[in-house]
Amino acid sequence: MKKIYGIGLGPGDEELITMKAYNLIKACDYIFVPKSKGKSLAKSIVSKYTSEKNIIELDFSMGEDNTAKYEDAAQKINSIVKDQQIAVYLTIGDPMVYSTYIYLMYELQKFNIQVETVPGIASFNAAACCLNIPITIKDESFYLCDRNVDEKILQAVDSICILKVNQNKRDIINKLEKHHFSYVYIKRCMQEEQEIIYDKNQILLDDDYMSLIFARKKLMNHHNLI
Amino acid sequence: MKKIYGIGLGPGDEELITMKAYNLIKACDYIFVPKSKGKSLAKSIVSKYTSEKNIIELDFSMGEDNTAKYEDAAQKINSIVKDQQIAVYLTIGDPMVYSTYIYLMYELQKFNIQVETVPGIASFNAAACCLNIPITIKDESFYLCDRNVDEKILQAVDSICILKVNQNKRDIINKLEKHHFSYVYIKRCMQEEQEIIYDKNQILLDDDYMSLIFARKKLMNHHNLI
Repeated sequence: MKKIYGIGLGPGDEELITMKAYNLIKACDYIFVPKSKGKSLAKSIVSKYTSEKNIIELDFSMGEDNTAKYEDAAQKINSIVKDQQIAVYLTIGDPMVYSTYIYLMYELQKFNIQVETVPGIASFNAAACCLNIPITIKDESFYLCDRNVDEKILQAVDSICILKVNQNKRDIINKLEKHHFSYVYIKRCMQEEQEIIYDKNQILLDDDYMSLIFARKKLMNHHNLI
Repeated sequence: MKKIYGIGLGPGDEELITMKAYNLIKACDYIFVPKSKGKSLAKSIVSKYTSEKNIIELDFSMGEDNTAKYEDAAQKINSIVKDQQIAVYLTIGDPMVYSTYIYLMYELQKFNIQVETVPGIASFNAAACCLNIPITIKDESFYLCDRNVDEKILQAVDSICILKVNQNKRDIINKLEKHHFSYVYIKRCMQEEQEIIYDKNQILLDDDYMSLIFARKKLMNHHNLI
């Protein structure tokens, strides 16, 4: 049987990959990475750990969920990886959080390939740690979404992270302000280009798609979000 | 200045610590770990990576948020770590998700200690990966809570993870069933004692506090949660 590990590499800092990711990268027969618009952040991270291995790029355009692309990619992986071999597919963040890997995984499962998913640090965990602000303490709740914030949920939770906020930041911020949340914008958290922005106008000017807004209703003792 | 790194070790599998955690464990002057009821899972993980370093246990009882304990622990860390030295404090999961580290961090910040938090794999990320079930795909939302599930939020989200479910599993499961969620119970996810339970009666019989329920409203193609 063939085996593929879908591995989360974390937010982008090469030190934030897990030991399991590192060990599998060293031991595997093939490394597959997603590429979008000519770039692969996963490849640039893994290249810091291995130079001797062939890294195969799979071209996806991020944001579009075009089933044919995932079918083709699964077909390609299946034709390259032979019986008894081990491959890894590397993805940024955690594989089960808004990842194109999820669609690829379902396509891979149609072939006779064993699929094991290895968690990675999600961007919202990285953001909270980078800010020293809790996602949740005892009895609190957290809401994770992309783009569209549901006000019914917002009313009832203590903290929220919105991913991929580049398209409707103004609407998101208006809702957060209406419901008395303090918020902060982080662009490319724990990558070299990281920027933390508190000023509303500056937040609205930025349009990086690898950005998130993290917000809390109650602030803690000795602590200010802004 | 003194510096302490608050480091998430992930769910319990020693391979799921980050390279950054590993490098800091190797480089630091002191290692602090929480202990509860005579046991320290963090210590048992870090012991697999270092034998030459003195590991200092700080006694907390999990679940109780007794401020004096955190004050005492911060005081102890401050008295042991000298200027220009580096210490690490290790915690299971992610430091910003329902962690006692959060309370300790606020106490440490009252001293002249620089605090940096290093993310770890949270239990719910580990659970979703272990099950090969997405937390979120495009346009979906996720709700994280401990013990008490708010039905208004439950109605509006696509997936949910409830941590520390040992006290009111029956109430949680009733709410999930009422709102047409498929659910699974995982005990000690990615630890040696891991158990995945789908049967309602069996779930109700278990009472491990390191357990969670993960549930989704919509299931995906080619996939069954149960």
